[in-house]
Amino acid sequence: MKFCEDCGAPVQLAIPTGDHLPRFVCTACGHIHYRNPRLVVGCVPEHEQRILLCRRAIEPRRGYWTVPAGFMENGETLQQAAARESHEEALAEVTIGSLLAVVHVLHAEQVHVFFRARLPAARYSPGAESLEVALIAPQAIPWQDLAFRSTEFALRRYLEDKAAGVEAHHFHTIDQRPTAQSKA
Amino acid sequence: MKFCEDCGAPVQLAIPTGDHLPRFVCTACGHIHYRNPRLVVGCVPEHEQRILLCRRAIEPRRGYWTVPAGFMENGETLQQAAARESHEEALAEVTIGSLLAVVHVLHAEQVHVFFRARLPAARYSPGAESLEVALIAPQAIPWQDLAFRSTEFALRRYLEDKAAGVEAHHFHTIDQRPTAQSKA
Repeated sequence: MKFCEDCGAPVQLAIPTGDHLPRFVCTACGHIHYRNPRLVVGCVPEHEQRILLCRRAIEPRRGYWTVPAGFMENGETLQQAAARESHEEALAEVTIGSLLAVVHVLHAEQVHVFFRARLPAARYSPGAESLEVALIAPQAIPWQDLAFRSTEFALRRYLEDKAAGVEAHHFHTIDQRPTAQSKA
Repeated sequence: MKFCEDCGAPVQLAIPTGDHLPRFVCTACGHIHYRNPRLVVGCVPEHEQRILLCRRAIEPRRGYWTVPAGFMENGETLQQAAARESHEEALAEVTIGSLLAVVHVLHAEQVHVFFRARLPAARYSPGAESLEVALIAPQAIPWQDLAFRSTEFALRRYLEDKAAGVEAHHFHTIDQRPTAQSKA
């Protein structure tokens, strides 16, 4: 951020009175611009023991596989966001189920939230952001070609819980900031 | 948003190619500025059957009661955010427990996340954003003077679950947009 979105004047980093972190503060109007983590929401859609995966047509990680997921929009719930992303990326109508995983992706300043989901009918095809969409058996999941570590975390917990007959939710933190050791 | 934070030129609302919603797009550099829900994170700290509540010293809802909660910062986990807010608002060192509630506050473009928490020692006092902090028995909770409906939802589910001997998590949606019926 270089300019104030309210008045167009330059901003500078400063710690506002009573605050404890540097913020972008406008040099003209004084507006304080806070930056906060963004929510990425997805789901693991299952149809007859197979899981719906998408091969990404866009960066980052073009060509790699993921579950349907994307940035949450204003005006929708987490569950609506997960269903919308399945529709956009895989042209799939899913039924969102229980909370599966919450992954703090610290270096990306994102929180990834995943739900279990059912795909009642095996109808799907690639949306604009996907090269390919497929129903994949658990033993055929391309673990080495997954797009994101949060995707891998969600898929592994999904399969483990399913084998154990439970629907738990799982927290996880991934930190690839230059100054941090990975906590994954 | 009126100006581009990257180049300072005016922005205008437009639906980018391949998108389905209007975004703020810079008239000079073309940068697309997405707006997404912000995370507010808090907890319900308990000490010997009483709950730590704060009376707000700042707007919105100055003078009303809430659990410790606030905007999540970049670089922290949800649990760290909840603990930090308890420290800032109530000078309290809490131990964060299980996930309690996720409330979509659509009109505010926020997602509120609450955890259960323990306050091991009854040490607390008002932080800069609190007029007063108190350990309050469940039967003395000032329901009519709570600051936010999400706070009320979290507190009610907390007490119900405690009475039932469970630690579930609960989703809820509050929508006070002018064009929407309340779904609460």
